[in-house]
Amino acid sequence: MTEPSPLDDFRRLATQPLPDRSEAIAATAAREAQLIKPPGALGRLEEIAAFLTAVTGKAPPEVTRPRVVVFAASHGIVEEGVSPFPASVNAQMLAAFRDGKAAINQLCGANGIGLSVFDLAVDVPSGNIAREDAFASDKALAGTMAFGLEAIAGEVDCLGIGEMGIGNTAVAAAVYAALYGGGAAAWCGMGAGATGALFDSKVAAVARALERVGPIDDPLTVLKRLGGREIAAMVGAILAARTQGVPVIVDGFVASAAAAVVSSIDRAAIDHCLFAHRSAEAQHRRALEAMGVRPLLDLDMRLGEGTGAALAIGIVQAAAACHGGMATFAEAGVAGKG
Amino acid sequence: MTEPSPLDDFRRLATQPLPDRSEAIAATAAREAQLIKPPGALGRLEEIAAFLTAVTGKAPPEVTRPRVVVFAASHGIVEEGVSPFPASVNAQMLAAFRDGKAAINQLCGANGIGLSVFDLAVDVPSGNIAREDAFASDKALAGTMAFGLEAIAGEVDCLGIGEMGIGNTAVAAAVYAALYGGGAAAWCGMGAGATGALFDSKVAAVARALERVGPIDDPLTVLKRLGGREIAAMVGAILAARTQGVPVIVDGFVASAAAAVVSSIDRAAIDHCLFAHRSAEAQHRRALEAMGVRPLLDLDMRLGEGTGAALAIGIVQAAAACHGGMATFAEAGVAGKG
Repeated sequence: MTEPSPLDDFRRLATQPLPDRSEAIAATAAREAQLIKPPGALGRLEEIAAFLTAVTGKAPPEVTRPRVVVFAASHGIVEEGVSPFPASVNAQMLAAFRDGKAAINQLCGANGIGLSVFDLAVDVPSGNIAREDAFASDKALAGTMAFGLEAIAGEVDCLGIGEMGIGNTAVAAAVYAALYGGGAAAWCGMGAGATGALFDSKVAAVARALERVGPIDDPLTVLKRLGGREIAAMVGAILAARTQGVPVIVDGFVASAAAAVVSSIDRAAIDHCLFAHRSAEAQHRRALEAMGVRPLLDLDMRLGEGTGAALAIGIVQAAAACHGGMATFAEAGVAGKG
Repeated sequence: MTEPSPLDDFRRLATQPLPDRSEAIAATAAREAQLIKPPGALGRLEEIAAFLTAVTGKAPPEVTRPRVVVFAASHGIVEEGVSPFPASVNAQMLAAFRDGKAAINQLCGANGIGLSVFDLAVDVPSGNIAREDAFASDKALAGTMAFGLEAIAGEVDCLGIGEMGIGNTAVAAAVYAALYGGGAAAWCGMGAGATGALFDSKVAAVARALERVGPIDDPLTVLKRLGGREIAAMVGAILAARTQGVPVIVDGFVASAAAAVVSSIDRAAIDHCLFAHRSAEAQHRRALEAMGVRPLLDLDMRLGEGTGAALAIGIVQAAAACHGGMATFAEAGVAGKG
């Protein structure tokens, strides 16, 4: 008999059946068809309204309590030379978030979005994946994933997930390579500014990590051996949001690695996720294609912090406002097609 | 001696020298380089901050009084059979704007954007361009273009331009074809829903208009003979905004036709314009390429009303908020590149 794993609860969240929302979905589709515009003229805004109803069961959909959650973590792989910034920046950026001075503070403020920042012990790096597993045990991984449940506490109705952690594009590259193949070079980009010899060193470190672990079938084992705390917490947040009916707006390259882990458990387990933007990080396009998803924005951003998610939530709010606030042809006395 | 034309004042607005803003541009660039993020990591948000300073001369740039202006007009070409909607929808949509029930009302509300709607006499269609000029005289055209000056009254610091007018994608197609060549079929899309025989009828009507006027060198003469009132008013707004230092956010296919007229007078005369989105109207991509501009958003929208502009202004506001509100490395005590 196999021992029960502390990860089993999370695996179940990925496949647990969801309530039947077909009635609400039909109601939103019916209202959409009656709004004073040519059918389909609001394009992806209409898709977003349908998506929100499918996830939440609410018709018309509403976004009144959006939140961006930023998970901050520290990575042992930094000692291999993968980033132009020192690991000490993690704690400094946490202070900037607290003081309202980082980019994500401005973007949340501009769109009326709540912001929560989780310090996943940035003073203690996770294992250097080039030499050892990121997490010492399934239990340690499960404990970090459990932060995801806190992320959706308090009736948040649209959750943006983002991260901060020097070295985490290297870790994300390792996760993608383990899930999708292709090798280290296929998944490494410049991150916060790794170019020239530093880029070569980053690719080499990721390649050593992949060689160390060999092929891995189980996505949560990929996460345990090659991931990092912010990716694990985002995996937990995506899984928790799924069964709670909370739409998730996934930020960029690193946040998408969390979605890739969940998607690899069960493709339908990311049906409640929207992808905020196509990052300027070179391999994000490949990651989005591997998941078969189309992002909302393409603004050459590559900062992380949930900045793309915050902008995308502005679009999601606008979509809900259009669907909910527009008149129907009958209400407005507007003539339909002649 | 040539008679002075009532259009000469507008031609001058396109080429009038602007104040030297190099000092402000340098100040914004210097601040951008000091903000707590890897250089370039905010991508197009950084471009937008630089753009706002270049247009307004303000460093750091601010967007505190954004406005969308919707110009509504009626088109004689509708009698040729170019749209599935009757011309009576124009007045009905004006009522919906007034009652706060159209899509643009919701989007402006969601982003805290002011909204002004100009009724350019929707009860009196402009000339049916398949048979006669849109405007009876240069004076009539100049009078309509003058509405553009009203659009930027009252210290607006970011102007979104949009439109509503059954049949106006046909008129815009004629304007593009006259400016850029390629013929009617190359510039006609489905508009509000012209498919099958209706689409063929739309292409034929635009082709008749082009045949009627023959080649035209002067962009404002293109506007007079093949344009419409909302396009003329948007041309006036773009020209007035240029010399007043007001950034303009250009909506979709029809609004871009106004920018194309201005750009054809002098390419630099649209340097103060940002293009909000790539519309789902098939030929908008071609129009943007002809002007050599890259839109901010690509959300499959094709409604008009300034809806794309309103969403893009949300991005512009966010860009200004980031640039103005973020700390510098020195202020935040964040370590730079190691």
